[in-house]
Amino acid sequence: MRAIIKSSVNPKVKQAISLHQRKNRETEGLFLAEGVRLVEMAAASGWEIVHGFYTMEAAKDERGAALLAELEKQCMMYEVPLPLFSRISDTQTPQGIMLVMKIQENPVDTESLFRRKQPLLLILDGVQDPGNAGTILRTADAAGLDGVILMEGSVDAFSAKTVRASMGSIFHVPVISHVTNEELMNAIEEWGIPLFAADVDDTAKPYFRQDFREAAAIIFGNEANGISGELLAVSKKLYIPMQGHAESLNVAVSASVIAYEALRQRSM
Amino acid sequence: MRAIIKSSVNPKVKQAISLHQRKNRETEGLFLAEGVRLVEMAAASGWEIVHGFYTMEAAKDERGAALLAELEKQCMMYEVPLPLFSRISDTQTPQGIMLVMKIQENPVDTESLFRRKQPLLLILDGVQDPGNAGTILRTADAAGLDGVILMEGSVDAFSAKTVRASMGSIFHVPVISHVTNEELMNAIEEWGIPLFAADVDDTAKPYFRQDFREAAAIIFGNEANGISGELLAVSKKLYIPMQGHAESLNVAVSASVIAYEALRQRSM
Repeated sequence: MRAIIKSSVNPKVKQAISLHQRKNRETEGLFLAEGVRLVEMAAASGWEIVHGFYTMEAAKDERGAALLAELEKQCMMYEVPLPLFSRISDTQTPQGIMLVMKIQENPVDTESLFRRKQPLLLILDGVQDPGNAGTILRTADAAGLDGVILMEGSVDAFSAKTVRASMGSIFHVPVISHVTNEELMNAIEEWGIPLFAADVDDTAKPYFRQDFREAAAIIFGNEANGISGELLAVSKKLYIPMQGHAESLNVAVSASVIAYEALRQRSM
Repeated sequence: MRAIIKSSVNPKVKQAISLHQRKNRETEGLFLAEGVRLVEMAAASGWEIVHGFYTMEAAKDERGAALLAELEKQCMMYEVPLPLFSRISDTQTPQGIMLVMKIQENPVDTESLFRRKQPLLLILDGVQDPGNAGTILRTADAAGLDGVILMEGSVDAFSAKTVRASMGSIFHVPVISHVTNEELMNAIEEWGIPLFAADVDDTAKPYFRQDFREAAAIIFGNEANGISGELLAVSKKLYIPMQGHAESLNVAVSASVIAYEALRQRSM
């Protein structure tokens, strides 16, 4: 079904704009997925779509028209004028199609992640940049990891930028958010999964000397400040060797290098 | 030396703003380095600084004051009011310190890169996102690669965002820009360096089956469209295996995974 909205004070428009703030996403249990490719992946994901917005311009395009025809079988699609769409959008050059979707954390409990056979998990402890978090979700999906855990104080997995940077992997990678240090340490102990920190100290070994055919949960820290002391204290350290003048790697790069080393070892 | 500039029509201010455009950077041979950590690295790099801008607020901070004291030995530092600094800056929350620097491509010729012993080179063919390019420079530095080649039509290595994302590695990694397909193929042939493309076809092998103790030049393509046909046709294909639903990896992730596999093999 389609309808037209022209007013910026329409409650659905106001709600969509409000979803740029994390507290509103969490209160309402909703998030935004924007852009042609992402919306195509959302439509095919099986996740619940509440409704969508599009511009007349986007509907004229062949790919946009096909997508819209598919979407209106699933939900109400509201045509809005381009200036109004731009106000809802958080991109600089909006592609003219966006969905309001229900947050569906998958799985919702640590147990179902941890009891997998030899699980490989990435843990983000205070990662702040939504682009980095989304890129890590995309890599975790590609590398076939078992899941990503976002510790309390980390960026929201459902911010518009994280969702975009995940390139749709948000719909497929198991993600658990708002985990406290205590919850993590209890789960690690209960399920007997070794905890590693991507960090350097005297005891650290190069990441490629670790046998990743075994279970592992690997922590990556905040872009500026690294991993919190409490988690560092209970983790074995793995480092990525560095030559040249660089002092560190981008956190999404670090996570990807280690994730793919694990996949390489498991493929040999 | 320090001086104060208050007017937005001051020629130095106008010039700095003009350096956000690539054509002006290339005509003038200048670029901008912004932010406390990056400016610290610039000051220690040996690269030529033309002059700098700072805000009174940045100079009050202990770290900012120390940096300013060091910089004024090297160049003129102009204090500008915060609103004017924000106009020169391309960041949303400027840190209040910025340099105008001379572009110094290092080395300036392909020969000095290619005649190294068993060189490992990354080639960016149409990469458009400055954050991706900067992240790749940072990884190339960290992994001790021999250099990065930016093909004609790729993003500028000296855009403010690329420089920031490189986290100072722009000052250390050999970079060559504006290379044409013909120039690249001639150099590859002359120096006998195998050319690889991060791409999939029937002949592709997993990247970790390649022996990277030998020389290699590895091409990474445009974020949406991949590598140009002409270069694909003359390259051996290496692919990064993908499980799950992800269709591709972020280009900086792909380059980093392969760069670190090469370093791993060379460390064993």
